[in-house]
Amino acid sequence: MKVALIGSGNVATHIAKAFKESGHQILQVCSPNIDHARELAEQVNADIIPHVSALTSLVDLIVIAVKDDAITEVATQLKDRDSIVVHTSGATDMEVLSHLKRYGVLYPLQTFTKTNDLDFSQVPLCIEAGDPESYQILKDVSTSLSTMVYAVNTMQRKILHLSAAFACNFVNQLYTLSNNLLLQNNLDFNLLRPLIKETAEKVQRVLPLEAQTGPAIRSDEGTLEAHLQLLQHMPELQHIYQTLSDSIKKSHQ
Amino acid sequence: MKVALIGSGNVATHIAKAFKESGHQILQVCSPNIDHARELAEQVNADIIPHVSALTSLVDLIVIAVKDDAITEVATQLKDRDSIVVHTSGATDMEVLSHLKRYGVLYPLQTFTKTNDLDFSQVPLCIEAGDPESYQILKDVSTSLSTMVYAVNTMQRKILHLSAAFACNFVNQLYTLSNNLLLQNNLDFNLLRPLIKETAEKVQRVLPLEAQTGPAIRSDEGTLEAHLQLLQHMPELQHIYQTLSDSIKKSHQ
Repeated sequence: MKVALIGSGNVATHIAKAFKESGHQILQVCSPNIDHARELAEQVNADIIPHVSALTSLVDLIVIAVKDDAITEVATQLKDRDSIVVHTSGATDMEVLSHLKRYGVLYPLQTFTKTNDLDFSQVPLCIEAGDPESYQILKDVSTSLSTMVYAVNTMQRKILHLSAAFACNFVNQLYTLSNNLLLQNNLDFNLLRPLIKETAEKVQRVLPLEAQTGPAIRSDEGTLEAHLQLLQHMPELQHIYQTLSDSIKKSHQ
Repeated sequence: MKVALIGSGNVATHIAKAFKESGHQILQVCSPNIDHARELAEQVNADIIPHVSALTSLVDLIVIAVKDDAITEVATQLKDRDSIVVHTSGATDMEVLSHLKRYGVLYPLQTFTKTNDLDFSQVPLCIEAGDPESYQILKDVSTSLSTMVYAVNTMQRKILHLSAAFACNFVNQLYTLSNNLLLQNNLDFNLLRPLIKETAEKVQRVLPLEAQTGPAIRSDEGTLEAHLQLLQHMPELQHIYQTLSDSIKKSHQ
């Protein structure tokens, strides 16, 4: 497939590489950040274009991988194009593209860092399209990129995006708070890394409800009290501790 | 080394196997739960004894791996023994053993499930002892079990145990809450598993503060507002969302 890419950030970079590695052709990369655009274009042998108006009509697919609040404006400039246009956002309605001839969504559910290679074939791709023919094309190309392709409507996609805040951003914040506790007591974060890894590994096989351990699920009030006592001068952590312990108890009632 | 083990739960099981695999000898397993004791004793070729009073004096080390609130009572029955006695609890003072001749702590910082094999050589072992000679013996035996051995005093150990509640129990609860959101919207937990894995993988290499992504760290108020809106009929989740988003913002001020 011939593809044009709008954007040059983390998502754009990982998607572009995945297309190339799966035998597709990225003809053009379009980004106002010319340094990022050049870097990405070099990696996937694409031309750089400075503006959407310079997009070739030779591409089958135009991928919009820009910040959420810029999608609508970019899409406005793509009116009358024959290519299928998709955005890659978890939080944006497909309908922002509905003035286009053929459109859809290709949302990769993963946390991307430019410098961090990951196996794109294991990235869940959530797809949706404005018409059945575009859906089939999008499904075929997605299947060539990843083994995990899911039909997901806009509402479900928003829920996934929200769930990812819990399972990724908030989880990472708990790692940060743990590390703060360690730092204050001259302890190395390496001490927690194996536990963090195993906690994530466990739920690859079972559901998290079955995997729970610790004082809250045992209603071990002595330990809960001792932990809160250790946090007595840290009201923010005490509040988070109490809130999440209560949540564990509630889930396991 | 010749070892006796008191307890037959998750920690006892994993420690016993690690001792055996590292060439040590488990002579006896003591547990009031005779089924569990038999299961474990068979795995490590040990004798079962029904009561602490039947412990042989031939062992170099007695490992107490029972519930926290049972440690003191077990320890009382070990008075006048010449073996080094250690408990394995993260939340219990070493001093509960101070009436013994030689004593210490061997705290493995990991989440253990009986049915789940893990590489014990990668489990951080936090050790502490009542005298330098016992410490050296404990350090030597620990080094034979794991590549990660740390000198950790009682206060630090309690902080580690508390941090583990954040980095394991609370993290797992966030997985559970994510899964609940998915279930309500006919979405499969498989969709989140790669994200969960990658989130834990990232902090194996960098610190969590550097790994943070998502709307809260970008102060993307539009997305934060949209997420809270999706949770409007779920006050508990809304509260957790707000609390942890605020915490992210504060950590990155």
